[in-house]
Amino acid sequence: MADQKPPVAFIGLGAMGFGMATHLIKQGYPVTGFDVWAPTLKRFEEAGGSTATTPAEAVLNKEHVVVMVATAQQAQSVLLDGPNAAVPKLPQRAVVLLCSTVPCDYVQALQVQLNSIGRNDILLIDSPVSGGAARAADGTLSIMAGMSAAALEKGRPLLAELSDPAKLYIVEGGIGAGSNMKMVHQVLAANQILGASEVMGFAERLGLDLAKAQKAVLESDAWNFMFEHRTPRIFTEFQPVASAVQIIVKDTSIITSEGRRSSFATPMTSAAEQIYFTAVGRGWAMDDDSSLVRLYTEGNGKVGPVYGAAESEEDKMALVLALMRGILLCAAAESLAFAHTVSLDLDQVLDLCVNAAGGSKVLEKLGPAIIKELGDAGDASSGESSLEDVFSGLSAAVEEAQRIKTPLYLGTQALSILQRVTQSKGTGSAGVVVKAWV
Amino acid sequence: MADQKPPVAFIGLGAMGFGMATHLIKQGYPVTGFDVWAPTLKRFEEAGGSTATTPAEAVLNKEHVVVMVATAQQAQSVLLDGPNAAVPKLPQRAVVLLCSTVPCDYVQALQVQLNSIGRNDILLIDSPVSGGAARAADGTLSIMAGMSAAALEKGRPLLAELSDPAKLYIVEGGIGAGSNMKMVHQVLAANQILGASEVMGFAERLGLDLAKAQKAVLESDAWNFMFEHRTPRIFTEFQPVASAVQIIVKDTSIITSEGRRSSFATPMTSAAEQIYFTAVGRGWAMDDDSSLVRLYTEGNGKVGPVYGAAESEEDKMALVLALMRGILLCAAAESLAFAHTVSLDLDQVLDLCVNAAGGSKVLEKLGPAIIKELGDAGDASSGESSLEDVFSGLSAAVEEAQRIKTPLYLGTQALSILQRVTQSKGTGSAGVVVKAWV
Repeated sequence: MADQKPPVAFIGLGAMGFGMATHLIKQGYPVTGFDVWAPTLKRFEEAGGSTATTPAEAVLNKEHVVVMVATAQQAQSVLLDGPNAAVPKLPQRAVVLLCSTVPCDYVQALQVQLNSIGRNDILLIDSPVSGGAARAADGTLSIMAGMSAAALEKGRPLLAELSDPAKLYIVEGGIGAGSNMKMVHQVLAANQILGASEVMGFAERLGLDLAKAQKAVLESDAWNFMFEHRTPRIFTEFQPVASAVQIIVKDTSIITSEGRRSSFATPMTSAAEQIYFTAVGRGWAMDDDSSLVRLYTEGNGKVGPVYGAAESEEDKMALVLALMRGILLCAAAESLAFAHTVSLDLDQVLDLCVNAAGGSKVLEKLGPAIIKELGDAGDASSGESSLEDVFSGLSAAVEEAQRIKTPLYLGTQALSILQRVTQSKGTGSAGVVVKAWV
Repeated sequence: MADQKPPVAFIGLGAMGFGMATHLIKQGYPVTGFDVWAPTLKRFEEAGGSTATTPAEAVLNKEHVVVMVATAQQAQSVLLDGPNAAVPKLPQRAVVLLCSTVPCDYVQALQVQLNSIGRNDILLIDSPVSGGAARAADGTLSIMAGMSAAALEKGRPLLAELSDPAKLYIVEGGIGAGSNMKMVHQVLAANQILGASEVMGFAERLGLDLAKAQKAVLESDAWNFMFEHRTPRIFTEFQPVASAVQIIVKDTSIITSEGRRSSFATPMTSAAEQIYFTAVGRGWAMDDDSSLVRLYTEGNGKVGPVYGAAESEEDKMALVLALMRGILLCAAAESLAFAHTVSLDLDQVLDLCVNAAGGSKVLEKLGPAIIKELGDAGDASSGESSLEDVFSGLSAAVEEAQRIKTPLYLGTQALSILQRVTQSKGTGSAGVVVKAWV
């Protein structure tokens, strides 16, 4: 009987949730699923699950519950506010993994609500995930979990079941800390998704062969996960739709609104967010986010006579790489500075981000120097890139973009930031750029 | 004979130049015009002018020359580099008014070139103008002129002829100072032109009646010249084309490239510039710049379900005004900080800008407080608006825009800046915002 797996209620069977829930079934858990979309329930039964028609019914007698809905509003509805909400039916000391990406604000408010209705027995775990549908179905997600010691004790087996052992991050700070960890990771994601389009768009406007430019970035110190994963679809008319524009919009809203709540300015992510809103406003919400490159390339033939200064392919490629580096450095600094502001362990943040979708060679190389500037342990010796190098390279790229009238939404924002820091802090390790945020 | 007006050569008979040159004719000057576009020359003859077929021919025996071409490249061509350039034919001690809007960089390089070819006898005047075609034809332009004492002595009558007596600004600092003065004025223009569209676009996305919103801004402390002059064409399908998008693009390029040269970050104008490039890329270069409102309104019906928090017309209007104020404050700070960086007399800058197209009630009210923060004379007592008021109002506007997925390119940039300053400088007069630049 020691091996018998406890029954699990699983609320929210979307692309991620369905994979996670069916993985649990394969591992021998009896899983009762709930989703508002009936066809999914049918599929879930075919995959060996039980189903329920309300959240309340799903959680009846379940001491283990996973919530994987899309938004904080949905979480609030299935747990507390909606018809037949789950919480009133939860048994004592049930463990609830909230795996949705929600604001720290929300999950902390949820804990307060549980306390205020006399249900502080519930062992809430703030455990957003990352890694995509394939890893969800494999049980090898990255999970960042904040919770009480009691909740960790009871919830750890389920967390371990869903995650890659090397990618289960127990985040100090309790409820909210997991969501904050996810949020600072998404700072990188939000900037680097748009950055991939910006860099490829700039390459096209410079007249470079796009496949060569892509290869140059991937083989350079400007490599980053998002660029590697997004840019292939630029060559296939943005098909298949792997990650729609509207998905990252949900995350930027969390980042910038939590930034306002924490009195933390997010100039890079805010700039990106306005461009995401622009894309949504053009009707591109459901398009693959690699299609943002259209915002940059549509000027071809429409901006009048232009006179670029870079002539050789080599010179142009250098500008492209410099643009990518500048964006990556400022994204890294904004992410780590925000992590510092919300009191996360920066070494853990760095370890998580370098090995996830936010990863970049710039983050890996300069992250320790940035952390040192933030006053934490860190290690500046890794920061052999000088601020001046990144700054002057980016400045040349911005100048050329101006000549050919290509917008660089993130590149110019990064340059303004580097300019200010260069002015006030002089030169030195590129890590000092983080002083623009804190 | 004392009243006899000296012959003038006038190079560049575009919308502005034609008006200026024909005004001189009416005042009794014999004017010889040159332009590359032949039909203009015919019209100029009909208006009583003489014409020449080359710059060299136009300036022959003329001790007074006005250059009113569109760009620094054109100025360089007509004066020195092009076929039959003017300078070699200029008589000794000829006074040359360069009235085009050019980078300080360029006009200083022009002086160096004159010196290097042994023509430092030429009395160059760096005298960009402002005020539009109607005032050009009336001889009531604003002119900001930097030059040597000798050049001023000989050129003053012509400067006075072209300008309103109260709006002829003799700028200390010699060649380049006039262009710098124009440039810092255009910081206001560039932000406030886009700002007018941003504010009206936000009003539309909030569901406000646009005529009411326009009136509310014009009757409030968020009044500004550009808003008053641009927004009427939003109601007439952006007709007639009074100022094409491509015109302000020329100015933003001067501002941001001179910013880079002066190691001065221009986050507001850079953000605006990327949006102007976006508009140019969409093929709108020749459209009236009031049509930029399209960038904000095209999201109507395309952003999915949205839930704004502001319900009453009064609440929505307050957000609109707060957005305008935030943009105006940061535009004022960027302009005055740049003026400080290039060593202009800030009281003169303020006087000029308040009474020109860059004017706003915010600049008038808070300019002295900003100047005080810059360490110049100034007067903080005028700054009764607190940073906190502007910040919290703008923050509410940005939050609501996020809810309804309206991009606020300038509003969010201003908020990031105000956030940083609030964090490091605490609260106080709104003038302290300028610390974000210097």
